Amino acid sequence: MANKEKACAELGFYSEKHALPEETTEAELLSLIERLNNDDKIHGILVQLPLPKHLDDKTIINNILPSKDVDAFHPTNVGRIMIGDFDFVPCTPAGIMELIHESGVEVSGKECVVIGRSNIVGKPMAMLLLHEHGTVTVCHSRTKDLKAQTRRADILVAAVGIPKFVTGDMVKDGAVVIDVGMDRDENGKLCGDVDFDSVEPVAGAITPVPGGVGPMTIAMLMKNTLTAARRAHEKKQG
Amino acid sequence: MANKEKACAELGFYSEKHALPEETTEAELLSLIERLNNDDKIHGILVQLPLPKHLDDKTIINNILPSKDVDAFHPTNVGRIMIGDFDFVPCTPAGIMELIHESGVEVSGKECVVIGRSNIVGKPMAMLLLHEHGTVTVCHSRTKDLKAQTRRADILVAAVGIPKFVTGDMVKDGAVVIDVGMDRDENGKLCGDVDFDSVEPVAGAITPVPGGVGPMTIAMLMKNTLTAARRAHEKKQG
Repeated sequence: MANKEKACAELGFYSEKHALPEETTEAELLSLIERLNNDDKIHGILVQLPLPKHLDDKTIINNILPSKDVDAFHPTNVGRIMIGDFDFVPCTPAGIMELIHESGVEVSGKECVVIGRSNIVGKPMAMLLLHEHGTVTVCHSRTKDLKAQTRRADILVAAVGIPKFVTGDMVKDGAVVIDVGMDRDENGKLCGDVDFDSVEPVAGAITPVPGGVGPMTIAMLMKNTLTAARRAHEKKQG
Repeated sequence: MANKEKACAELGFYSEKHALPEETTEAELLSLIERLNNDDKIHGILVQLPLPKHLDDKTIINNILPSKDVDAFHPTNVGRIMIGDFDFVPCTPAGIMELIHESGVEVSGKECVVIGRSNIVGKPMAMLLLHEHGTVTVCHSRTKDLKAQTRRADILVAAVGIPKFVTGDMVKDGAVVIDVGMDRDENGKLCGDVDFDSVEPVAGAITPVPGGVGPMTIAMLMKNTLTAARRAHEKKQG
């Protein structure tokens, strides 16, 4: 959370942090969301997940006004991402697209392989790559011969949550390798899903962990919040 | 439309057909949708697309109550399909899944290749195959070396809209080939996206056109309408 607050402060965004006790009931949390939904001063609402077990993520997320859902987790926003007509970008995948664009990598016609099929990263990532005309394959734990898939990739996105899962022998020469992982290695040190030491010599470009995708995600969250404020302003102007 | 009305009649569903003149205004169409949204007798609303040019598909679709959107085109329903928690199945892709299941084909771990990335077929198809643990690749007009992709496929779905586009040399021995096309060949005869004559000897299973996917789509539409009626009934019961 600290990084998000810092980003808000740096950008001059007004922000409120509601650190609720673990025993908060669903009714209490929904009542807070309702209040923030109706508060004109607030343009973006972010519920830090995962929630304690007695709270249902889905119920909570679905009660955030889609126009304030800056995480883009509400079904309406997810659907708009899939359709390709969206205000709010999915933060982590959109951050990755920014990195790809900044590096001058063209997605169109490229073989893109995404390892992981989560609702937060894998699936929206596949959609954004597809919108930019990549040929997109989504792999996961049930994929047979994963190496054959990853070795085809011009752009490889690893979002598996297993430390150093992608090794050099799984990567095509010159591939762009994006590491979404935030894992701990056997010594408790922060690392990614990609084994940087063996992949770096093979890859054409590679994101480090920490410092690669993570900061971009927060930047995209801020971008969505700005978009939300703009839309609210436009609406007020009629 | 005739097939849908016939299906309603066969199932004993009450149905209304509103055949509007081409010059119908947006306001008139939205007013009709509003009335149907609020009509307890109506559980499903289907707007036949494409609409005349002066009407915006998106505006019209987005005004159908998601709980009556039996085509599952509303962003909220699209998002729920992507998330994997949905009441309404996407009709054509879900019809295809039924065909696959009926044939005893296991999707889990299979290489699934979808040609086409439309919002109606390609993208939701990819999601359903992914939910059933297929390794899924989406190809399209910008895909380089399409044949290399399609020849990997254990399950190949063609939804391109080009007559006889998929030929025998593009198909792996024993693959399951699903033809979503409804095209006309050079003689004006109805045909699919798959060149049946050259693919049939190679494929392990293949859907014909007409008669394969099409009737399943209507069945799924009826299934969604039944689901909508059930949900409305449950809601009334509290």
